[in-house]
Amino acid sequence: MEKIFSYAQLFSFCENVFKAMGCSDAHAATAAKALVAADARGIDSHGVARLSGYVRLWEVKRVNATPNVRVVHESPSTAVVDGDSGLGLVVAPFAMQEAIDKAAQCGTGWVSVKNSNHFGIAGYHAMMALPHDMIGIAMTNASALVAPTFSTERMLGTNPIAVAIPAGTEPAFVADFATTTAANGKLEILQRKNADTPLGWVQTKEGKPSTNANELKNGGSLLPLGSDREHSSHKGYALGAIVDIFSAVLSGANYGPWVPPFPAYVPMPENMPGEGIGHFFGAMRIDAFRTADEFKANMDQWIKRFRTAKTAGGYDKVLIPGDPEREMETDRMKNGIPVLEMVVEDLIKTGEKFAVSFA
Amino acid sequence: MEKIFSYAQLFSFCENVFKAMGCSDAHAATAAKALVAADARGIDSHGVARLSGYVRLWEVKRVNATPNVRVVHESPSTAVVDGDSGLGLVVAPFAMQEAIDKAAQCGTGWVSVKNSNHFGIAGYHAMMALPHDMIGIAMTNASALVAPTFSTERMLGTNPIAVAIPAGTEPAFVADFATTTAANGKLEILQRKNADTPLGWVQTKEGKPSTNANELKNGGSLLPLGSDREHSSHKGYALGAIVDIFSAVLSGANYGPWVPPFPAYVPMPENMPGEGIGHFFGAMRIDAFRTADEFKANMDQWIKRFRTAKTAGGYDKVLIPGDPEREMETDRMKNGIPVLEMVVEDLIKTGEKFAVSFA
Repeated sequence: MEKIFSYAQLFSFCENVFKAMGCSDAHAATAAKALVAADARGIDSHGVARLSGYVRLWEVKRVNATPNVRVVHESPSTAVVDGDSGLGLVVAPFAMQEAIDKAAQCGTGWVSVKNSNHFGIAGYHAMMALPHDMIGIAMTNASALVAPTFSTERMLGTNPIAVAIPAGTEPAFVADFATTTAANGKLEILQRKNADTPLGWVQTKEGKPSTNANELKNGGSLLPLGSDREHSSHKGYALGAIVDIFSAVLSGANYGPWVPPFPAYVPMPENMPGEGIGHFFGAMRIDAFRTADEFKANMDQWIKRFRTAKTAGGYDKVLIPGDPEREMETDRMKNGIPVLEMVVEDLIKTGEKFAVSFA
Repeated sequence: MEKIFSYAQLFSFCENVFKAMGCSDAHAATAAKALVAADARGIDSHGVARLSGYVRLWEVKRVNATPNVRVVHESPSTAVVDGDSGLGLVVAPFAMQEAIDKAAQCGTGWVSVKNSNHFGIAGYHAMMALPHDMIGIAMTNASALVAPTFSTERMLGTNPIAVAIPAGTEPAFVADFATTTAANGKLEILQRKNADTPLGWVQTKEGKPSTNANELKNGGSLLPLGSDREHSSHKGYALGAIVDIFSAVLSGANYGPWVPPFPAYVPMPENMPGEGIGHFFGAMRIDAFRTADEFKANMDQWIKRFRTAKTAGGYDKVLIPGDPEREMETDRMKNGIPVLEMVVEDLIKTGEKFAVSFA
């Protein structure tokens, strides 16, 4: 069911496909690195499994392989970036670097992005801040699958938030999560197994509770973090809304139900109010608040204290956000990255369009 | 069971108590305004019901009535504020104003605060940004009541996040929520009614599911937003952790299980690593991204579209974050603020300490 690839194999394959699409060498490398980071970190739904989707968006001219990504508005600590319909995998690292550069100058940098496309995993972009002794923040909106509390209508994407915080001798704190109870990738895993979801992940078209992993195909929707009103789904709805507004209303991208879909065969929404999809990035220099050494010593203590908190029966240890992905990355960089057979076939077919094959 | 007061009556009473504690006229007014905002907006757990608690903290010298609140470190877009053990109700508006001033200068302002105390409702401080056409952000840590995913130990406070976003003709978007499934105030309401909680709000000392509204008194804990691992409580845990780190590790306040308790009779934690409790504030000038007019026109469209989303059976309309509190405020400013009899008695007793009575 799975085939094992090295990181280098997957990276080169994706890089070559992006080059064949017409991306510059620099853009192809940037995009491949961002994309394969998802596979390395175990977020398989957002990695090479999506390569063919990006290619199809380029084929229907929704993705521009040679974008002029640029700052169109700025202040000392902010910028708006126009992604010129480029791959989000290229636009996002550009915008995050802009946030880092602003932070180097005046303590923090905040960049809202319009006219972009899906950017892979949010955590990858947030983590760009870490080597600079900065806190990194990344978020993005996405096409609507989530119904607000009290609603049956898909109004928000899974709108993830990532926050990466440097530590000293401990590994960095890296939170990266969809603002829904379950990300769509988790539903796809259950669909392949023909299994039910727990209650609280999805609802029917009529807004009734459901355990059907295929409920979205019936017009149902994902539920915001919290699942239902009694368990504070209005908080997950608010979080998803904040991501949407920071990413798109602040930049001039599309928001709410108008965000362009990822599948190239799905028609674009009518009367779109903005350009492309939106992202939002932040970088905060630690020493704009206190010395990095003091901060890191306290972060190490924070992490050690939480890691050794008393566990509930049946659990070995309390995790720090980022632990599972980091352990996965260590393992996969050493032992290779398993890719589902159906994804391998999809990659091979995509490569054949451009005469690109695995090394 | 309840007595009705005007906003002015509650404000004057609190202002006079703060003055009698030794606060300056300016500080007493600032603190009373922040405190009674909670009652006006319907968040009764955080308003005048807490006045006697603040007084007791002052009596045991954990609150300084004449603090020298000041910036101790800064960059063009950031500052750290030392609250000098002052009332959080005084320290927080000072720090939020600092964030607004920084934003006026360089697009955004970000202020982390140490050596403070409880600051009332987060939303009040975030909303200070609105008249400046800025987005406001406020968060705070608090004494530990919440167990991380897989843990039975209280490691985090209810650590609320507030985000206030200006609109045009529509009222502002104001999200203000604890990063737990249920705030402690909701448990208190059920305790008074002798009622059970839904599953997913609290767990027992051993980490087992519970519906006992008094579970915290038995050594149990509140659950992070998401309730359990299957419903992504690790996301609520990550959110609470981010609030803790931004508020306290970035400023040098106490974090995690070391945050000082609100009840003055509870001993302080041992080996505290920082000073007081911590807050974090942000202000982003809209026109540091795009013109405020364009932004507000899009926000109005966003709000109208969400407000008219299809509703699930039994619900009238989809709410925008801030709707319930704003409607409550309109009603209470006109018709008065109901205060529980037991809270009224507590206020009268507190007033008697200082020869302060209701007008």
